Amino acid sequence: MSVIEKKLESLGLMLPAPLGPSPLAEHVVVKRAGDLLFVGGIGPIKNKMPAVTGRLVRDMKHEDGYEAARLAALNMLSVIKSEIGDLDRVAGFVRLTGYVASDGDFYDQHMILNGASHLFNEVFGEKGSHVCTAVGVNVLPFNVPVILDAVVQVLL
Amino acid sequence: MSVIEKKLESLGLMLPAPLGPSPLAEHVVVKRAGDLLFVGGIGPIKNKMPAVTGRLVRDMKHEDGYEAARLAALNMLSVIKSEIGDLDRVAGFVRLTGYVASDGDFYDQHMILNGASHLFNEVFGEKGSHVCTAVGVNVLPFNVPVILDAVVQVLL
Amino acid sequence: MSVIEKKLESLGLMLPAPLGPSPLAEHVVVKRAGDLLFVGGIGPIKNKMPAVTGRLVRDMKHEDGYEAARLAALNMLSVIKSEIGDLDRVAGFVRLTGYVASDGDFYDQHMILNGASHLFNEVFGEKGSHVCTAVGVNVLPFNVPVILDAVVQVLL
Repeated sequence: MSVIEKKLESLGLMLPAPLGPSPLAEHVVVKRAGDLLFVGGIGPIKNKMPAVTGRLVRDMKHEDGYEAARLAALNMLSVIKSEIGDLDRVAGFVRLTGYVASDGDFYDQHMILNGASHLFNEVFGEKGSHVCTAVGVNVLPFNVPVILDAVVQVLL
Repeated sequence: MSVIEKKLESLGLMLPAPLGPSPLAEHVVVKRAGDLLFVGGIGPIKNKMPAVTGRLVRDMKHEDGYEAARLAALNMLSVIKSEIGDLDRVAGFVRLTGYVASDGDFYDQHMILNGASHLFNEVFGEKGSHVCTAVGVNVLPFNVPVILDAVVQVLL
Repeated sequence: MSVIEKKLESLGLMLPAPLGPSPLAEHVVVKRAGDLLFVGGIGPIKNKMPAVTGRLVRDMKHEDGYEAARLAALNMLSVIKSEIGDLDRVAGFVRLTGYVASDGDFYDQHMILNGASHLFNEVFGEKGSHVCTAVGVNVLPFNVPVILDAVVQVLL
């Protein structure tokens, strides 16, 4: 078993089935260019449905937003694995951009995205380290509270 | 004539004149780093003016938003051509980020961006396949309904 | 003294202390992949505090927004220097994305970001040339008016 798979297991984490190409949109969720993997437009989807909808903090608490970011990040790991076969081939996370559906007076987008950042650090250690841009927006597709995209460097 | 030019012609599509550096802003619209082309901040501009303004769906219908995304994408092709000379040198689209000016209860940003994604797929086939992040925002520069940026891999 | 340092001095610009990893968020502010530097989530921070808060133009004038973008860009230069040691090793700016906290009827996000673009052009000349995507959003972390992220190509 791969090192990262073992780590996931030890954390009690199961990778969800990878999100396939969206049935509603004409794009894929992961694409490689050289040794960079672009992963994008990933939300807190579970069994092909939004696991949670709404805005911070009108519709949910901080911890619900954090969990939504963590679920989106877990989906991202599943997508990455489906592309490169083995998560041990991740050379390093590079960049995370996270959009958080926010009320106009909610200023803690970075805390919500920690749900994703924490997961990457927990699972990949040093290699999970990444740049993060946290942005508030008024609304997101499917009314999800958070959408992530990322750039990941992989071993060829 | 190049394969892609022929394809554009067969689809009845004419590339608009490439957007030059913005006269109002101190940046360019395309920059290459290695074999990656970064194209950015492209809206539904026609003859140097916004072809459409406003927000989804307060100010326009879904199909107007879709057409705006398609026009922005067509501008993008023109910009890419101006940089690399021949669209046949596109090795593959990698990533599209699209910002859609949205009412707080509009959740179909991904459907709007299909106007761009569909064009890339139509013209480039397999090579047009890309990751897409669709984001809703409250407002965009010049009050346009959609702005795109992209990463494209090219043959050196 | 390096060419760029001399240029900064001639412009009367002092680099602030580099922003370290955020104490509140689990990520870094710069990460390298190959010859690309990803710098992200940089705001108008001064002495570890937001130098200015609020939205354009409800809470501040255009020129305050411009200055905020310039300060964020100066922070970015400091971060880049801390990563590569000498700003002369910047081969070229590639891409800037700027998020501007905006009222729903503020359409000049690109003018605000000129505060950053102008600085890059002033200091790096030809090499400062970059693609820019300007986006309006309803709110940003810590209630800052502008957040930047960038891709920069460096000499290895």
